[in-house]
Amino acid sequence: MPVRDAVVLLSGGLDSTTTLAVAQASGFIVYALSFRYGQRHDAELASAVHVARAMGVLEHAIIDIDLRRFGGSALTDEIAVPKDRDVNEMATGIPVTYVPARNTVFLSFALAWAETLGADDIFIGVNALDYSGYPDCRPEYLRAYEAMANLATKAGVEDGRQLKIQAPLMRMTKAEIIRKGTGLGVDYALTSSCYDPGVAGRPCLECDSCRLRAKGFAGAGLPDPLLAKFGIHPV
Amino acid sequence: MPVRDAVVLLSGGLDSTTTLAVAQASGFIVYALSFRYGQRHDAELASAVHVARAMGVLEHAIIDIDLRRFGGSALTDEIAVPKDRDVNEMATGIPVTYVPARNTVFLSFALAWAETLGADDIFIGVNALDYSGYPDCRPEYLRAYEAMANLATKAGVEDGRQLKIQAPLMRMTKAEIIRKGTGLGVDYALTSSCYDPGVAGRPCLECDSCRLRAKGFAGAGLPDPLLAKFGIHPV
Repeated sequence: MPVRDAVVLLSGGLDSTTTLAVAQASGFIVYALSFRYGQRHDAELASAVHVARAMGVLEHAIIDIDLRRFGGSALTDEIAVPKDRDVNEMATGIPVTYVPARNTVFLSFALAWAETLGADDIFIGVNALDYSGYPDCRPEYLRAYEAMANLATKAGVEDGRQLKIQAPLMRMTKAEIIRKGTGLGVDYALTSSCYDPGVAGRPCLECDSCRLRAKGFAGAGLPDPLLAKFGIHPV
Repeated sequence: MPVRDAVVLLSGGLDSTTTLAVAQASGFIVYALSFRYGQRHDAELASAVHVARAMGVLEHAIIDIDLRRFGGSALTDEIAVPKDRDVNEMATGIPVTYVPARNTVFLSFALAWAETLGADDIFIGVNALDYSGYPDCRPEYLRAYEAMANLATKAGVEDGRQLKIQAPLMRMTKAEIIRKGTGLGVDYALTSSCYDPGVAGRPCLECDSCRLRAKGFAGAGLPDPLLAKFGIHPV
């Protein structure tokens, strides 16, 4: 396998952690990139730090950006996170947890770093199946971003290289993602998915993200090690 | 003329200030957006504050982002700013003052703000004629960005609106830009162009940006009021 550098967007959640494992299994040396963006669930960032350390990334950068300055989301504002929605109802419409242009902002920093490193690959853990209805998680969005990125940068324009936005989980169900990551040795007890966690990152089990996670582990026929960590017995 | 909101990227330089004037003359209520991104020329940001105040924008947001974290440019690193280059030689190749993915990062924050405001228009003062060879200043780049933005956002996807990246200076020479702005009442003494300014923002007169500015004023047949402000007599 070729040894190449890649920038991996790492939130500390289940999807981005699995994506990191996939990038490493494909032979990439990983530069992990996380953001402190005014998210209410800071536990996620603590998970990102633990995951990056446990999985031996070459470098982990945490960038401070203030998306709260612009408001507009339950994840950064004082809007209530919706609870106890049925997982089959989530994909209708764009929910209040959508952060305006978040993936575009994140990918743009990843692009800046990739260009400085001379890396051609950026990995992002988005998923079009078991997702929450965000427009910037769709394959047509990522293709448009990639086309733009190749026109934006010195790498794409002058050096004749091709920047690739890699989203290996795009067409996988949550259950398939969990099986894939488990096969690659991912320790999901280190990850954090909850939009509204309690003390020490204890998952609320009621937000969209907790419910998608529970459905995923159930579908994979595997126990969620995060629940065991908090002494929670699944229903 | 319709009254609509627009986000205008404002560096405090000659081009972005003229762009702001064009947006206002087109009937837009302006939200100005500037960045503290580790640039060595902090004088530019001071100019942005003066320009925004003098031109009566509705709101001026200054976002802190640390592009120095990734390095790779004479504008943010300890790489020397090139001096005394002939203006006709500048457009060959991408110079060391190029900041990786800078416009992509800036536009992405503008997109986040536009989405929160419900604004459909983002103005950027890029220019493909008298420019410095940056890949992210070309019309094909902006078209690709616009296509991506319309797939990225709630506005583009759900509300049936069309986000537009407006670059009114794209095909103007520096002299035409200066004549246009002067006709709209822009006070260019408030603006700052130098990549390597001295005390109180005194222009070095030797970097690419100072030389392009001098060529522009000469071509417009107008004196640069910034020189008078510093008691500099043009050669």
